[in-house]
Amino acid sequence: MANAIPTREENYSEWYNELIKRADLAENSAVRGCMVIKPYGYSIWEKMQRALDDMFKETGHTNAYFPLFIPKSYLSKEASHVEGFAKECAVVTHYRLKNDPNGGGVVVDPEAKLEEELIVRPTSETVIWSTYKNWIQSYRDLPLLINQWANVVRWEMRTRLFLRTAEFLWQEGHTAHATADEAMAETRQMLEIYARFAEEWMAMPVVKGYKTANERFAGADETLCIEAMMQDGKALQAGTSHFLGQNFAKAFDVKFQSKNGGLEYVWGTSWGMSTRMMGALVMAHSDDAGLVLPPKLAPTQVVIVPIYRSEEQLAAITEKAKEISAGLKKAGISVKFDDSDANKPGWKFAEYELRGVPVRLAMGARDLENGTVEVARRDTKTKETVSLEGIVAYIEGLLEDIQHNIYQKALALREANTHYVDTWEQFTEQIEKGGFLLAHWDGTSETEDKIKELSKATIRCIPYNAPQEEGKCILTGKPSSQRVLFARAY
Amino acid sequence: MANAIPTREENYSEWYNELIKRADLAENSAVRGCMVIKPYGYSIWEKMQRALDDMFKETGHTNAYFPLFIPKSYLSKEASHVEGFAKECAVVTHYRLKNDPNGGGVVVDPEAKLEEELIVRPTSETVIWSTYKNWIQSYRDLPLLINQWANVVRWEMRTRLFLRTAEFLWQEGHTAHATADEAMAETRQMLEIYARFAEEWMAMPVVKGYKTANERFAGADETLCIEAMMQDGKALQAGTSHFLGQNFAKAFDVKFQSKNGGLEYVWGTSWGMSTRMMGALVMAHSDDAGLVLPPKLAPTQVVIVPIYRSEEQLAAITEKAKEISAGLKKAGISVKFDDSDANKPGWKFAEYELRGVPVRLAMGARDLENGTVEVARRDTKTKETVSLEGIVAYIEGLLEDIQHNIYQKALALREANTHYVDTWEQFTEQIEKGGFLLAHWDGTSETEDKIKELSKATIRCIPYNAPQEEGKCILTGKPSSQRVLFARAY
Repeated sequence: MANAIPTREENYSEWYNELIKRADLAENSAVRGCMVIKPYGYSIWEKMQRALDDMFKETGHTNAYFPLFIPKSYLSKEASHVEGFAKECAVVTHYRLKNDPNGGGVVVDPEAKLEEELIVRPTSETVIWSTYKNWIQSYRDLPLLINQWANVVRWEMRTRLFLRTAEFLWQEGHTAHATADEAMAETRQMLEIYARFAEEWMAMPVVKGYKTANERFAGADETLCIEAMMQDGKALQAGTSHFLGQNFAKAFDVKFQSKNGGLEYVWGTSWGMSTRMMGALVMAHSDDAGLVLPPKLAPTQVVIVPIYRSEEQLAAITEKAKEISAGLKKAGISVKFDDSDANKPGWKFAEYELRGVPVRLAMGARDLENGTVEVARRDTKTKETVSLEGIVAYIEGLLEDIQHNIYQKALALREANTHYVDTWEQFTEQIEKGGFLLAHWDGTSETEDKIKELSKATIRCIPYNAPQEEGKCILTGKPSSQRVLFARAY
Repeated sequence: MANAIPTREENYSEWYNELIKRADLAENSAVRGCMVIKPYGYSIWEKMQRALDDMFKETGHTNAYFPLFIPKSYLSKEASHVEGFAKECAVVTHYRLKNDPNGGGVVVDPEAKLEEELIVRPTSETVIWSTYKNWIQSYRDLPLLINQWANVVRWEMRTRLFLRTAEFLWQEGHTAHATADEAMAETRQMLEIYARFAEEWMAMPVVKGYKTANERFAGADETLCIEAMMQDGKALQAGTSHFLGQNFAKAFDVKFQSKNGGLEYVWGTSWGMSTRMMGALVMAHSDDAGLVLPPKLAPTQVVIVPIYRSEEQLAAITEKAKEISAGLKKAGISVKFDDSDANKPGWKFAEYELRGVPVRLAMGARDLENGTVEVARRDTKTKETVSLEGIVAYIEGLLEDIQHNIYQKALALREANTHYVDTWEQFTEQIEKGGFLLAHWDGTSETEDKIKELSKATIRCIPYNAPQEEGKCILTGKPSSQRVLFARAY
C-alpha cells in the first residue's frame, strides 16, 4: 500500500485531504478551485440528493431549472446582494474563439464581445425573482414553492475539496408568499428539514439558530442555520434558510393582487444545502483507518469477502454468499460480494474500511461448516461470529444500530466540547482548545467584529433554544440577555 | 381563455412555441438563448432522467461530476474538436466585479483578468480525458464506464425552446476501453439504450444508423445516431453515440499497460441525450388541443374531476374519488383529484387536455348512483362510462394501451411519409412535401454538400438495416450500393 494516511491527531487537515483522495471521493482538477467528484463520492451525493429531494416534494415543492448566466445588471439590483457576491464571480465577456492570425492557436475573438457581461450564477435569487415577476399576478399564484438542483460558482481564493470550491453542486429553494408570516414559517420549515436530514441521514447532530446581522445572507432579513461540530472541535455551517422579506420583490418589482384587492410586494425565502455536506460527513465521523459512513448514505452497506484455499471452497462459499446477498437485497440492503482474485482478504478488509462500508461479512470454510459468518462493523471495528439463521434480520438491526451509534458518538463529542464561558480570559483560553463556546455578547456588530479579530472565533448562531438569562458581554461587559454560540469555523 | 393556440396545419412552428408556453413547459429567460424550464416541464425531464439513469446503471455505468470550466488550451488539443466548438462558446475572462470609480454601478475589474481564459463546457471530452490520464495506468483500470448529468453551453445564434438553446441540460457518457472492439461494442450498446428509451418511454419510433463523415461529432471516428420523424415530416436527431477511436487518448496522452505488458493508447466512446428530447416529445405526439404525453413519462397519469351541484354531492363524490385514488396509487399510478372550486369542470377538462394528462375521470351524482365513472383518454379523445368495479385494473390496461397507441400512431405517420426515390426530380419534388427519403448517394462529401445546398436536406443516417442493392446516386448518377436516409431536419 502507499504511504499511510496521517492520523487525525498528527495532522487533522492533511488527514482530511488524504482521505478524500484515497477513498476516491474527489480530486482537484486542472481548473483552479474546481473539483472532480469521483464515482464513489458522487454515489454518496446521489443518496443525499434523493433523501433531500423526497423531503422537499413531501412538503409541496417542485423542481425547475433557471439559467446558469445572470446579466451583470441583475446582480446590481439588490444592493447588499451585489456587495456580497461581486468580488468573487466568474464573468463571461465573449462568445467565440478564433484562430490566432499570428499562429498562436485559438484566441478569444475580440469581435465577439457581449454587450452586457454575464455572471456565472453564484446563487440564483436575481434571475429567479426576475422570472417570478411574470409568474405572479394574484394571491392565487401564491405560494410558489420551487427548488433547483444546480452548479454554482464563487471564485474563492483559498479552496478545499468539498468544503470550499470555486464550483460546487447544491440545491437552492426559492419560494414566494403572500404574507411575512407565511414566508417566515417556510424559512423555519426548511431549516427543520435540513436539521432532520443532518441528524437522521448524516447522523450528525446540529444546533439550530439565527445568524447575527453580520453573518446573514447578502439580501436576507433573517438567516437561520444549522451548525455542526467536526472532530477537531471546529464548527461547520451545514445548511441555511433565509427569510428575504420583500427585498427581492422590491428589487424586481414583484407585486400581487391580494384577496382584498390591494397591490402588495411578495415575501420571499431561499434555502440551500451543497456538496459541502460531503466534507462535513467525512469530518464528522471518519477515523484514522478511513471513512465511517452512516448506513443510510453508504452506497454499499454490506460487503461479503470469501476466505478460501481452494476453488472448491470458493464455489461453496460463493453459493452461500449469493443466498445471503439475495436475502439482503430483498430487504432493501445494498450488498457487494467481492470474489475478485486480484487481491488478498487482508487487502480487501483495509480497502472497505477505507471506503467506510458499514458492515463486512467474512466467510471461510469453517464458517460454512458451522453455519456461521464473521460480522465486522466499521464504526466500532468489533467482530463477532454470527449464525446464518436469521442473518438478514440481524444485519437490518445492526445497520440501524450503527446509524444510531455514529450519531450518539458525534453527539457525545459535541457535548464534551461545548463550554459555558463567562469571562474573556476563559474565552480566549478555551477557544484555543476548540469546541463550542456559549457566552454572553452585547448584541453589537462592532463587538462581534472585535471578538473575531482577537480570537478568530465567530458567532455561529443565536441558538433557538437559548434560555433567557441576565449576563455580561465577555468582551465589553455590557448587559446581555442570552448566550450565543461561538466557535472557530470551516 | 387567452387566444387559441394556432393549429398544426395553420402554423406548425407557432403551434409548437405556443404549446411549450401554454402547457408550462418552458420559457425564454432574459439571457439570450437560455431557457427557464418550468416545474411542469421539469417534472417530465425528471422522469426521463430517472428512466435513462436506471438503464445506464443496469449496464454498469456510474455517475460522476467534472468541472464546468475548460482551460482554453485543452479545447485546442484535439484538432477537429476545437474546430467544431470554438465558434460557439462562452468565454470566462475575469473573476471579479468592482464598483465603477465613475459611479456607473458595478463593472468588470480589469485587474482580475484570468491568465488563461476558461470555456464554459460545450461538451466534456477534453476535461474528462485530461482526468482519465491519471486514473488509467493498467488494463485492470479498464473499462472505465462513467456518465455525468450536467448543463452545457453552446452559443447558438438561432435558438428555440428545448430544440436549440444556448444552455441545455443533458447526460454525457464517457468511457475508456482496452480495445477498439470493446469500445465499438459500447458505442452500439448505448445507441440501443437510446433507441429503447425513445421507443419504450417516449413512444417515438426511431431509425438507427451511422452518420456520414460530414455529420460526425467533432473528434469521433464514427457517430451512431437515432433519428425520429416529427409530425411535420422533418427529422430530429434524438441521441448520438460516438466511437472516439484513440483520438482523445492521443490528445491527452492516456496510455495503459496491456495484459501482455505493452503500453497502448486507450480507446474511447462518448454519448449524450439532452433536454432537446422534451421538444421531440412535444413535436412527435401532441395535437391542436395540447400535449399528448406517453403515460410512462406523464407526471400525472390520471386526473379525477368531480361534477357537482351541491356541497353534499361534492362530499359524496370526494369520498369515492379518494377511494379510487388510493387504489390507483397502490398500483403505482400517479393521480390527482382536482376539487378546486376556482374553476368549472369544462375549464379543467381543457386545462388537463392542454397538459396532456393521459386519462381523465369525471364523476357526477349519476355516476355515484350507478357505480360508474366517465373515462376519457387524451390520445384519442374518446370517452366511455365504466363500472367502478375493477376500475384500477381497467386503468392500468388503458395506460398501457395509450402508451402503445401513441407509438403506433407515430410509427404509422413515419411509414406513410417514408419514400423511396430514385431520381433527382422525384427527390426535389418529394422533399418539399417533407418526410424521410431513402435514396442512393455516391458516398462523397462533395455530393452530400451539394444536395444540402440544393434541397436543404441532409443525410440523417446510413441506416443499420439498409439492404445492399445496386443503384445510382440521385444527384451524380454514380454507382451506389445502398440507400441512405435524407430529410430536412431540426
